[in-house]
Amino acid sequence: MTQIKFNTALIVGAGSGLSAALARALVTEGIKVALAARSTEDLAGLAQQIGAVTLACDASRRTDVEKLFADLDDGFGSPEIVIYNPSYRTRGPLVDLDPDEVEKSLMVSAFGGFLVAQQAVRRMLPKRHGCIVFTGASASIKGYAQSAAFAMGKFALRGLAQSMARELHPQGIHVAHMVIDGGIKSARREEQPGKPASLLDPNSIAASYLHVIHQPHSAWSAEVELRPWVESF
Amino acid sequence: MTQIKFNTALIVGAGSGLSAALARALVTEGIKVALAARSTEDLAGLAQQIGAVTLACDASRRTDVEKLFADLDDGFGSPEIVIYNPSYRTRGPLVDLDPDEVEKSLMVSAFGGFLVAQQAVRRMLPKRHGCIVFTGASASIKGYAQSAAFAMGKFALRGLAQSMARELHPQGIHVAHMVIDGGIKSARREEQPGKPASLLDPNSIAASYLHVIHQPHSAWSAEVELRPWVESF
Amino acid sequence: MTQIKFNTALIVGAGSGLSAALARALVTEGIKVALAARSTEDLAGLAQQIGAVTLACDASRRTDVEKLFADLDDGFGSPEIVIYNPSYRTRGPLVDLDPDEVEKSLMVSAFGGFLVAQQAVRRMLPKRHGCIVFTGASASIKGYAQSAAFAMGKFALRGLAQSMARELHPQGIHVAHMVIDGGIKSARREEQPGKPASLLDPNSIAASYLHVIHQPHSAWSAEVELRPWVESF
Amino acid sequence: MTQIKFNTALIVGAGSGLSAALARALVTEGIKVALAARSTEDLAGLAQQIGAVTLACDASRRTDVEKLFADLDDGFGSPEIVIYNPSYRTRGPLVDLDPDEVEKSLMVSAFGGFLVAQQAVRRMLPKRHGCIVFTGASASIKGYAQSAAFAMGKFALRGLAQSMARELHPQGIHVAHMVIDGGIKSARREEQPGKPASLLDPNSIAASYLHVIHQPHSAWSAEVELRPWVESF
Repeated sequence: MTQIKFNTALIVGAGSGLSAALARALVTEGIKVALAARSTEDLAGLAQQIGAVTLACDASRRTDVEKLFADLDDGFGSPEIVIYNPSYRTRGPLVDLDPDEVEKSLMVSAFGGFLVAQQAVRRMLPKRHGCIVFTGASASIKGYAQSAAFAMGKFALRGLAQSMARELHPQGIHVAHMVIDGGIKSARREEQPGKPASLLDPNSIAASYLHVIHQPHSAWSAEVELRPWVESF
Repeated sequence: MTQIKFNTALIVGAGSGLSAALARALVTEGIKVALAARSTEDLAGLAQQIGAVTLACDASRRTDVEKLFADLDDGFGSPEIVIYNPSYRTRGPLVDLDPDEVEKSLMVSAFGGFLVAQQAVRRMLPKRHGCIVFTGASASIKGYAQSAAFAMGKFALRGLAQSMARELHPQGIHVAHMVIDGGIKSARREEQPGKPASLLDPNSIAASYLHVIHQPHSAWSAEVELRPWVESF
Repeated sequence: MTQIKFNTALIVGAGSGLSAALARALVTEGIKVALAARSTEDLAGLAQQIGAVTLACDASRRTDVEKLFADLDDGFGSPEIVIYNPSYRTRGPLVDLDPDEVEKSLMVSAFGGFLVAQQAVRRMLPKRHGCIVFTGASASIKGYAQSAAFAMGKFALRGLAQSMARELHPQGIHVAHMVIDGGIKSARREEQPGKPASLLDPNSIAASYLHVIHQPHSAWSAEVELRPWVESF
Repeated sequence: MTQIKFNTALIVGAGSGLSAALARALVTEGIKVALAARSTEDLAGLAQQIGAVTLACDASRRTDVEKLFADLDDGFGSPEIVIYNPSYRTRGPLVDLDPDEVEKSLMVSAFGGFLVAQQAVRRMLPKRHGCIVFTGASASIKGYAQSAAFAMGKFALRGLAQSMARELHPQGIHVAHMVIDGGIKSARREEQPGKPASLLDPNSIAASYLHVIHQPHSAWSAEVELRPWVESF
């Protein structure tokens, strides 16, 4: 068994607690990290702390994504690991949803994943080396009432991940879809008193991402679900 | 057991063999049919034969869909049955896909389904009466290699259907997603000699659509898969 | 499109409301019906009413099942339709379950299905003609807490149905697994006042079984789920 | 994030390459290991090498399993980790399967899993601490043609695992079902020349088992699939 080694990683949709935890975990392993987000302002502190690069990018825009990878090519290098986190959701009864918001959910949650993945894979294929991880949600596998837009975006992202895994695994590129089935702990979202570990700890999630990323060729996971012990499912 | 009765139906994405078969089956039961497609030219013959109305509509455009339903309101009446068939696919290695085509696949296969469903449900809810059927494919439940765009669009449509079923069934509106798992017989796509029924007969598909549409409240299907007997799965 | 025609049917696990409804629906179509159950006492009234044959059989016993089919061969004829309904459940925390009851759940819910199916298929294969329907439940696709035994039995039955569908569809034998997702209305289980159709009506279920049974070769369903409109899922 | 710590492990169905790899990986982490198999003869060498205990046990027999745990209680201690590997398969056309073999597949692949899990959980519940891992296969999620018996056994085991996860996660006991989707490398089953990592390396599988076992409460996986990079799915 040989763990796969990586030197560079790109996290798209950086800013949330999960992205920060992922960035820290990658850097701890000696992997260089680039953080891309629509606004890089909030990333400055983290980036300085861990020595990461930051880049501004609206992942749902083709030209932004092309520029992101071109910029990385100049200096940082092609990312060998790419993690795609962005999603956009709008909630409410189907009849009340704003079509523009529904379209945005598809564009940010799924189409952006395609744009980023396509640029990444173009750089990975010649080396037959790379790992792409998509962040899913409960809504990726179950369409909930009053959440049609999010279900559409997250289902679509899962369809992309499945198609890519079937196409790219035999070419040496690992594609994984992570189903995060529960709320993530953050500064704004604290666990209720007396309910320890009732929310997903970003560091715990990151540990499973890192495990999947390092899986040797002989035993790859294409989908892993993670949920707190007390979460009903 | 009481079958649910309907008076009016709208088929979107009319033109293919499936839509024609559905239209004939509905008319045979005394249901008035409206056919909507981007171009209504090809529909003229069928429409005249069965006494159906035709309307031009690009289902992925909000204004087109709003106009479609406004036009139906004037005269034809609100459709009590709505069937959504359109899809758009582009194939090839992930790295070669044209992003504009991928976006179009999401827009036609999934976003158009939302636009049409939203208009339909607005009219159905006050009467707590109606049935919406989405046409899925093998790609709705399995992301195939070299078919990322179609997987994205069809997965998204299934997410929409699931979310709508959970939200709307208790409000009296039946939402069903049909997984058509195999090729459909058509003028251009004939069965191979010696392989009878190796393609899906549009009339056989239509019979199952009609069965689902008429299911009484006590036993609704939210998803039905159909495939030829010789199809591997 | 040609509906498939059948002359004879065997319903195993007869006695419940569903079996009676299925029997009536089949007889109405001119199909001769045989009813098999562990005890035939309760079947006498129904059998006389609809002109059905009754046979005693513990479906989880190999010799019983062999005798059942041998008896049918003498006179009634080989059943062209076979419906398998029996299940056995025991509930409670995992640690409290009686292992004998768990074994019985596997034997009645799943192994009996295999025994009956094997005898049936032996008679259907030479004619490449027949339909076998297995009755599943919510527990067939979701393992619920405090219901391990039922989950084991119903999952196993679904595994059998899937394997048989993949093996036998190309040989002309239709195998379908019906997921009954909700409570069935019966003399003992009435709908709550003000909640019409909140339980599955056996006649509505039977209508969908009959539809599946008659599907032409070009569009077979291998699994169909049925649930009341108000059932959450 | 705090990894969960364990002191003792029981591997049932020891003997195969996977069990040996698991045993080594556990011992490397300082965990005491007990190996149970129908015959302990083949285990002697491994047990001596890694300092493991061996016990004879036919996991499909209630009295054997009760004795196994009673014996462990005397000296070794209650296992905090339990891994269930046994399965039994018979292949061939449905009509040719020997019913006794089909029953054995259910008993060994699924009922034994229940027996072992029940004894294990009785000991884990008072401490609200423990992890139970079931080894699944491709057949756990897809019923293949000519493999009805294996599908029945493996589906049933998955039903058990799902039910247990829903019941026991909130009580502090982690239950995971591993879908091993591909052939496992062994002395008898070598990779084809020029196809590196085309079989699952037992050590790679073990690494993912260990990762799941150590997952902290806030991010548990209930099911993880593993397959070689070149495996089609």
